[in-house]
Amino acid sequence: GDTDAARAATARQAVLTKPPGSLGRLEDAAVLLAGWQRRALPELDRVHVLVFAGAHGVTARGVSAFPAEVTAQMVANFAAGGAAINQLARQAGATLTVTPLDIDHPTEDFTQAPAMDETAFLAAVRAGHDAVPADADLVALGEMGIGNTTAAAAVAAGLFGGQGADWAGRGTGVDDAGLARKAEAVDMALARHADVLADPLAVLRCLGGRELAAMFGAALAARQRRIPVLLDGFVCGAAVAPLARLNGAGLAHAIAGHVSAEPGHRKLLAALGLAPLLDLGMRLGEASGACLAINVLRGALACHNGMATFAEAGVSEG
Amino acid sequence: GDTDAARAATARQAVLTKPPGSLGRLEDAAVLLAGWQRRALPELDRVHVLVFAGAHGVTARGVSAFPAEVTAQMVANFAAGGAAINQLARQAGATLTVTPLDIDHPTEDFTQAPAMDETAFLAAVRAGHDAVPADADLVALGEMGIGNTTAAAAVAAGLFGGQGADWAGRGTGVDDAGLARKAEAVDMALARHADVLADPLAVLRCLGGRELAAMFGAALAARQRRIPVLLDGFVCGAAVAPLARLNGAGLAHAIAGHVSAEPGHRKLLAALGLAPLLDLGMRLGEASGACLAINVLRGALACHNGMATFAEAGVSEG
Repeated sequence: GDTDAARAATARQAVLTKPPGSLGRLEDAAVLLAGWQRRALPELDRVHVLVFAGAHGVTARGVSAFPAEVTAQMVANFAAGGAAINQLARQAGATLTVTPLDIDHPTEDFTQAPAMDETAFLAAVRAGHDAVPADADLVALGEMGIGNTTAAAAVAAGLFGGQGADWAGRGTGVDDAGLARKAEAVDMALARHADVLADPLAVLRCLGGRELAAMFGAALAARQRRIPVLLDGFVCGAAVAPLARLNGAGLAHAIAGHVSAEPGHRKLLAALGLAPLLDLGMRLGEASGACLAINVLRGALACHNGMATFAEAGVSEG
Repeated sequence: GDTDAARAATARQAVLTKPPGSLGRLEDAAVLLAGWQRRALPELDRVHVLVFAGAHGVTARGVSAFPAEVTAQMVANFAAGGAAINQLARQAGATLTVTPLDIDHPTEDFTQAPAMDETAFLAAVRAGHDAVPADADLVALGEMGIGNTTAAAAVAAGLFGGQGADWAGRGTGVDDAGLARKAEAVDMALARHADVLADPLAVLRCLGGRELAAMFGAALAARQRRIPVLLDGFVCGAAVAPLARLNGAGLAHAIAGHVSAEPGHRKLLAALGLAPLLDLGMRLGEASGACLAINVLRGALACHNGMATFAEAGVSEG
């Protein structure tokens, strides 16, 4: 972030009518937004929720509690305004954009082949990159894609080590046998693509999916444009993790909106050094957790921008 | 809560277009609100934030990082709209009412005498009781009162056992010597009032303060009127804890809005069996943490009331 704006925001926090530090993470959030927006009094007038949808060849391995056609059905539900994220985005005063990524053509089953070839991968990254409005004050990222917690587990294992059992979770609600199939699919993918695991972008291409590549592209575009980003759950975290692997400060503009009930997410956030704002046992995706965190940030800025100082209010300092 | 409305809400959650349980605590919150509001589709049109202010004789013992006159100065800041809670209540679409309770006349120093006599205690309880609008959909409770984390620690110790060192924290930011003075004041109070510790109301009267008594009265009124309540931090939790001690379901209508950075709060919530919605390292009081949780509840109801069902959206169930 911009250090002058962040410094000015920090100085302002110290003179607002409250004990120093007593707004906790709201204070840190205000300073982070100030730094990336390059203004001591940041704003959240233009908040965009970007949801990307992709279809996954690995669904043929029985890794989800839901059939693969639900991805397209849910994209239709987004368009009709019936999904959770439609309600949450409206409630948060954010503009929702859903981008389906070639969902009639699933990625390859990554236990057998790279999920995407270079062309498909770059097209998805570009779609995400281009989805970020240049004048956004904040973007929240999320996804829909039956099978994509298996892809996320594979990407996380590829980037941070460990085996399928370390990163696979129940996702939408698979039973024990389904969970075992997910872990096995991840292990097969790690073996199949062992030669590319040192390359974070290749990990995302070979083990990920189109919506993951798009979230990566969106987070990259936001970083270039100095737009702060709210991350959603496990799939989102895995998608943007290559940015942190490529550059130690690659996710400095990112805030973890929440930690999901998918066990790998907490581990992934720890590996990324990100502390989630919310911990509500959610595991829906769709940017739902990130979207709930928008109002926490609105609260942070309402205080930061609107409170009186000790001098203005005639309140004695401690 | 009303079991018919709660059952209907639970049944609705099961058919909304999401994996069952995937909205985590949002689902539980929607069901709780449905039960207490006695309607399967609860509303948050009339949300009231009630802040009570009181002055504490125990401040003479050097238990706060701020001078005692800050209580009245902050009440003026609330009236002028300059405090954190003014900004947060507006951002949450809630109506803020601040009730100062005889703040020119501090309670007695409870290390030496009961904080309040029966008349003063009942007047404060009644002020809280009368502050709850009969038609409220939700009330959030909070406080202001220099010295009141010492009162909260004394009440918590009186109700749940332990010594001053177990419940005293740094409050607005006392140093090690101040923390030791707080713990000592609590221990003196426990010794002075040892004969009433089995009576939860007497604990609140002898070891609490006017704003604590008022929050107790407000939570009681809300319970009688079936209005769900959002609790704020340590002082609020200690104030309403006697309800749970008097009746095992006395706080069944209460949701812990957050857990504060004051260490005693986490312990107190565990003793009350309440899981906080938020954990943001806040320690301001003023209902600030509860107020941030209002928007979490708004998100919960936006989903609960607004989402399409599987049948409506033509989405396959798992």
